[in-house]
Amino acid sequence: MGLIVQKYGGTSVGTVERIMRVADRIIEYKNAGNDMVVVVSAMGKSTDVLIEMARQIAPNPSAREMDMLLTTGEQVSIALLAMALQQKGYDAVSLTGWQAGIATESVHGKARIQEVDTARIRSELQRGRIVIVAGFQGISEKGEITTLGRGGSDTTAVALAGSLRADKCEIFTDVSGVYTADPRVVPMAQKLDSISYDEMLELAILGAGVLHPRSVEAAKKYKVKLVVRSSFSQEEGTCVEEAADMETGRVVSGVAHDEDIAKITVVGMPARVGTLSRLFNTLAGAQINVDIIIQSSYDAAVTNISFTVSSDDLVRTLDTLAAYQEALGFDKVEHESGLAKVSIVGAGMITNPGVAAEMFQQLAEQDISIKMVSTSDIKVSCVIPAEQTSLAVRTLHTAFGLDVAEQAVVHGI
Amino acid sequence: MGLIVQKYGGTSVGTVERIMRVADRIIEYKNAGNDMVVVVSAMGKSTDVLIEMARQIAPNPSAREMDMLLTTGEQVSIALLAMALQQKGYDAVSLTGWQAGIATESVHGKARIQEVDTARIRSELQRGRIVIVAGFQGISEKGEITTLGRGGSDTTAVALAGSLRADKCEIFTDVSGVYTADPRVVPMAQKLDSISYDEMLELAILGAGVLHPRSVEAAKKYKVKLVVRSSFSQEEGTCVEEAADMETGRVVSGVAHDEDIAKITVVGMPARVGTLSRLFNTLAGAQINVDIIIQSSYDAAVTNISFTVSSDDLVRTLDTLAAYQEALGFDKVEHESGLAKVSIVGAGMITNPGVAAEMFQQLAEQDISIKMVSTSDIKVSCVIPAEQTSLAVRTLHTAFGLDVAEQAVVHGI
Repeated sequence: MGLIVQKYGGTSVGTVERIMRVADRIIEYKNAGNDMVVVVSAMGKSTDVLIEMARQIAPNPSAREMDMLLTTGEQVSIALLAMALQQKGYDAVSLTGWQAGIATESVHGKARIQEVDTARIRSELQRGRIVIVAGFQGISEKGEITTLGRGGSDTTAVALAGSLRADKCEIFTDVSGVYTADPRVVPMAQKLDSISYDEMLELAILGAGVLHPRSVEAAKKYKVKLVVRSSFSQEEGTCVEEAADMETGRVVSGVAHDEDIAKITVVGMPARVGTLSRLFNTLAGAQINVDIIIQSSYDAAVTNISFTVSSDDLVRTLDTLAAYQEALGFDKVEHESGLAKVSIVGAGMITNPGVAAEMFQQLAEQDISIKMVSTSDIKVSCVIPAEQTSLAVRTLHTAFGLDVAEQAVVHGI
Repeated sequence: MGLIVQKYGGTSVGTVERIMRVADRIIEYKNAGNDMVVVVSAMGKSTDVLIEMARQIAPNPSAREMDMLLTTGEQVSIALLAMALQQKGYDAVSLTGWQAGIATESVHGKARIQEVDTARIRSELQRGRIVIVAGFQGISEKGEITTLGRGGSDTTAVALAGSLRADKCEIFTDVSGVYTADPRVVPMAQKLDSISYDEMLELAILGAGVLHPRSVEAAKKYKVKLVVRSSFSQEEGTCVEEAADMETGRVVSGVAHDEDIAKITVVGMPARVGTLSRLFNTLAGAQINVDIIIQSSYDAAVTNISFTVSSDDLVRTLDTLAAYQEALGFDKVEHESGLAKVSIVGAGMITNPGVAAEMFQQLAEQDISIKMVSTSDIKVSCVIPAEQTSLAVRTLHTAFGLDVAEQAVVHGI
């Protein structure tokens, strides 16, 4: 008994049959005495169809009109899901983003939620209704329809759960939870029962696709108990919550990897104040996302700067640097592609020194050369040759005790 | 130069290519110095696709959720049309019904427009933008998305033209205007250059599908100069306006017909106060639309009542009457199907007596038996055997001088 916010993704509501099945699952919760608020995405590939129509008309359509276009996708889903619930004898009402009181910045395509006015949702809940809310969308102060960008529907669900002080926020997706590593790479990977916000955030940033970093950040901020689980089974998922409950010996919670990265070194930059900011502002201006950054100085006047980018951005990065060589005043650019980033994540690192050293040792024993290193309180990332990714991930997964089925068995490293 | 409201139907915006062509046409008007407000319907058969999905989920979905579902159709059209205009270098903005300030009753599926708050549209026009408005939809006082029912987009256009005091309201459709008769029945039928609101209203009610009676009524009320024309040619259309300009000798403006009607006679109703209202309230309660009604009394105590319904409603009407026979107290019901209604419409009838007599004479000369007659100031309708419909329509079209290409040649009848 309580107030539960659920979110079903596009695959979960991809067909009329699946919508009926989602309705059945919501009804189970409702029958158990819960108040239900359900966020849904657009059906399956319907967003792609809309994008394709837009592209046929304009190669680069305005963000405002794209928002106007794409938000129809979720509006279709909420109407159909509400009908399905009504058909099964339950009182339900669908609400668009603006009807649900989701106020965002005046930005199109990637607006942040500023505030949720829950009055309408609360009044519908008081009438005993199941409330179905369109994910991914909101309204700006100017009365414009906005969208939240990638991970938008998860963010809608978390924001609603936070504003409504829901007991939990369940994200239904096509995997059964958060895994210690990508099961396609590590057959021994196991589903985590629970994980802290910070760990989940690192994993999400490192590319574990199950949750967008933004929704995890919001969950952390509003202390929303987040559960990731499969919409195709009854299996328990992974609970993302405050770390307190979990300081039970687990040092590393997961191994993440990203295979498509390139390393670039800008050689001989003048070592003046503002060198770094000039360089990275130039790259940011070209919409290039830079990940790991390392600066090494070999004399007082010049410095070398290495950084990683996605392989997709390599050519654009090199072109941009070439165009600005004179302005930035460096000697030359070196680059290396075919690299991967392997990371271990775990809140336990804070209180367990030597985790990074253990990681380097394990990789060295497998003759894996480490090109770059980056660390945070709860993460160590190493850049290595891409062809050794699987070996590295499996080695670390075993070394940090993640292969064992019972986590209670994990002991100090 | 002026302010023009245009409406393009679903066929006119049925494909990406057609949307581009509609954009070109709007641009011609804009380049000529006009302020443009454009109302569009949902693309082609997209509404049917949505309805089919809903039916798969619920045979009888709630009207509120149907409105939520169907209004996405126009939202897609307005976004794509705005993108097309922007792509061609013109500043355009799309507005949903609620953004355009279209306030309706709190009714779903067939709400009437109560008021239009034109502030947003005016401010967009002042910025030099072409304003694209979603037809068929509005918002209720409670913040619910509503739809206007059949003919909804035409009604949106007329209401906007009235509220904005537009110079004219052009309805673009797949025919080139209003004809003196259905060209499929009367090859000599000609397009009218102009027609009065009242005549158009009669024709629309009699089933000339080009405009919904509701939009004509609204045009008359707000004195909106309405033009019906083809979106597939540059041909001038038909102007619907005040009768004053047109009192130039034309007695009959058009011949309309409706082939699917049935006549029902309730025999031996007690001739008491309230007999008629009891009978027709019963039928209205069963959602049966009754057209022509004739009462004949053959003695002081009992009366016979004949009326027509659409053939589709015949069985339901007979069932309803059977169920209420005791309550209504009549003797029996007779019915006749396979009938048609042929009507002549013309504002000139008011000042030209003998038009009805001429109509009866013409039909008699062709051995067409008249089963029922109904008249208004500007219309005479006769119910005849359906198989004689074409003969009747062509005979009347010729007799009332509508075959001639030049209407100035028409003289007194």
